[in-house]
Amino acid sequence: MSSTRDIDRLIEMMAKLPGLGPRSARRAVLHLIRKRSLLLTPLAEAMQVVAATARECLNCGNVGTADICDICASDKRANGELCVVEDVADLWAMERAGVFKGRYHVLGGTLSALDAVGPQELRIPRLIDRVATENVTEVILALNATVDGQTTAHYIADQLEGQVRLTSLAQGVPIGGELDYLDDGTITAALRARKQF
Amino acid sequence: MSSTRDIDRLIEMMAKLPGLGPRSARRAVLHLIRKRSLLLTPLAEAMQVVAATARECLNCGNVGTADICDICASDKRANGELCVVEDVADLWAMERAGVFKGRYHVLGGTLSALDAVGPQELRIPRLIDRVATENVTEVILALNATVDGQTTAHYIADQLEGQVRLTSLAQGVPIGGELDYLDDGTITAALRARKQF
Repeated sequence: MSSTRDIDRLIEMMAKLPGLGPRSARRAVLHLIRKRSLLLTPLAEAMQVVAATARECLNCGNVGTADICDICASDKRANGELCVVEDVADLWAMERAGVFKGRYHVLGGTLSALDAVGPQELRIPRLIDRVATENVTEVILALNATVDGQTTAHYIADQLEGQVRLTSLAQGVPIGGELDYLDDGTITAALRARKQF
Repeated sequence: MSSTRDIDRLIEMMAKLPGLGPRSARRAVLHLIRKRSLLLTPLAEAMQVVAATARECLNCGNVGTADICDICASDKRANGELCVVEDVADLWAMERAGVFKGRYHVLGGTLSALDAVGPQELRIPRLIDRVATENVTEVILALNATVDGQTTAHYIADQLEGQVRLTSLAQGVPIGGELDYLDDGTITAALRARKQF
């Protein structure tokens, strides 16, 4: 299929997206071609716009369309609480929950000896700087409950010890969770952190 | 996140693709933004190119970048065999197998009383026309082994009866298949079509 090279190339590029493989990329591209004017052209244009405007917030690392993101720029969120997350996706997840009214700091990953990721590769120096210069009263370590996430949380806690109130997300049974389907670690954590009923 | 409207819009559009949902669309878009110059811009450009050039072959219904697709245009494939498939994806699957050396005819769906799809909605009149005017010696009905697919195959067979040799794909145990995991229908079909060892 030589003259369909452009289509093949698009399929190849789509297949590299997380969550898509060669088969689903083919399906997606065929779907797009069938609804060309309705889907393919608007999608291509939306991508161009995002490619041209998306950037990382210079302050917190969130992805937005300005040098300082909406959250950092908002007066309403300057309540002294700073939530440290690994990744922009985690920040978005926190925002969807809609309960946190402070600001964020996106590390951009976790410390990892295996992958040679040290504090300088992450946004940790900037975090220490923000705690020193912004009016931060509490740092909430909302890192993933993985080994790397917790290692990073302990490293940050060591660095900020005594300068600010440090907290982390509670661990326990997820809402709607059934004990029978929970892993031993979660049950242990939930039991240890049990509270008055 | 008001100034991130463009990003939200891109996520919404990606979430409508088959095989992607809101969560995987968010992951894909974040991935694209992170590798903007490497992935997002080239992908947007590839989509623009395909949106501008992709079209259906006027002869067979295949998707390509010319009015007559490569397969229809190729002299090497004019061996009188015409393979009838439901969908372009099926044509691509046959081509990947690389064993069929004739031409194709894409119906664009199946007959369906429920969805009010009759022969005129599909490329069936064009098929009858091709059989009458091109040098077709054999029509291979490679429709899906579903109720709608087989209904459509029978309808086409009725229309072409006596004009041309009609065949269909063999049914049986798939290569690498284990009897224990096969449905009863497939085992029945494979047993009925058993052959000398």
